[in-house]
Amino acid sequence: MTRRTDTRQRIIDAARELLYTRSYGDVGVQAICERAGVKKGSFYHFFPSKQALTLAVIEEHLLISKRQILDQAFDPALPPLERLRRFATRVYDVQKELRDLTGQVLGCPFGNLALEMSTQDETLRRELQQVFQRLEGLLRDTVQEAVARGELPGPVDATATARAMLAYMEGVMLLAKTANDVELLRQLMPALTRLRVTPAEVDATPTAPPAAQAS
Amino acid sequence: MTRRTDTRQRIIDAARELLYTRSYGDVGVQAICERAGVKKGSFYHFFPSKQALTLAVIEEHLLISKRQILDQAFDPALPPLERLRRFATRVYDVQKELRDLTGQVLGCPFGNLALEMSTQDETLRRELQQVFQRLEGLLRDTVQEAVARGELPGPVDATATARAMLAYMEGVMLLAKTANDVELLRQLMPALTRLRVTPAEVDATPTAPPAAQAS
Repeated sequence: MTRRTDTRQRIIDAARELLYTRSYGDVGVQAICERAGVKKGSFYHFFPSKQALTLAVIEEHLLISKRQILDQAFDPALPPLERLRRFATRVYDVQKELRDLTGQVLGCPFGNLALEMSTQDETLRRELQQVFQRLEGLLRDTVQEAVARGELPGPVDATATARAMLAYMEGVMLLAKTANDVELLRQLMPALTRLRVTPAEVDATPTAPPAAQAS
Repeated sequence: MTRRTDTRQRIIDAARELLYTRSYGDVGVQAICERAGVKKGSFYHFFPSKQALTLAVIEEHLLISKRQILDQAFDPALPPLERLRRFATRVYDVQKELRDLTGQVLGCPFGNLALEMSTQDETLRRELQQVFQRLEGLLRDTVQEAVARGELPGPVDATATARAMLAYMEGVMLLAKTANDVELLRQLMPALTRLRVTPAEVDATPTAPPAAQAS
């Protein structure tokens, strides 16, 4: 039983590393088996497909993010704005650690997979959308509490503001990965705490064509 | 001469569509040749590799973005904050058009390629970094003008603020693609105009470890 669990975990760990440092399209089952030191038959005993393994890898990334970032940042004992600041700091710290280890800014494992796979694999897209909804939920609760405590001046749509904060984090990760410069995260992440989306912006009807807005 | 140019352009158009709707890893030279209706020999006459073709595709995306978004948004005749609003609106309009056409939110072609390829292909990473630097330049000039005209209260680091706006746009695109919901762009993009990064945040030394900040 222990050996069975070990093999499964070894496959997940190998796939997590390869997918995170390369891409879904570039990493085949063969390469994962070689890295994990298992035979293909053993692989397919645990996972029917690369897609199924990737779902397990996403789950593993979420556990690690929870341990390394989310549990520390979204600590109910902290004032809400401090949680957002802690979130910004921890994202930088973890990316810096990975950069020091690998020489590259790896960015967000969920964002990486989401941009590569969302138009190609509906199962992975939905799974990644659910991951983002969980992160958004943590941010939304924090924004709501900040508004209730008067730490965040309104009017604020808490859901849209949380989504804006998540978007900003993902975008800063994207630029930092493209520039291979982890210091972008340190410089840009603090502005996350000042993002606001108003109820009027959420309710607005589709925008008028540009001509109608010309001066 | 005309036929030569036509063939080259047909290859670029086919690759642009396939790479944008799928991914770099998923699209091979064979698939591009089939879509373009050319033989492999003809392909390699124009492009030594998929990487070389992808550089031409990035250039083509930039021309299209200029025509569809950037020239309309960053019109020097408009007040600077109106340029930012126009940018937010045009990004939504173009993504909505593509969604109506394909049924999918495709997101930013540069961001898609950047997250998939930055750790794997240094030539593509540098090219995409340069694209982002050009977009950042347009935003930076706009922010600087807004500050000079008193439309944007300081203190503001114009370069870092432009980078934050670009990051936010990329992140909103990422969430919209993952949710396959183009309306996220309409709701979230207007907040881009309110992003600010201060000179103090840019100059700050690396953050203290979390323990030192605990309450």
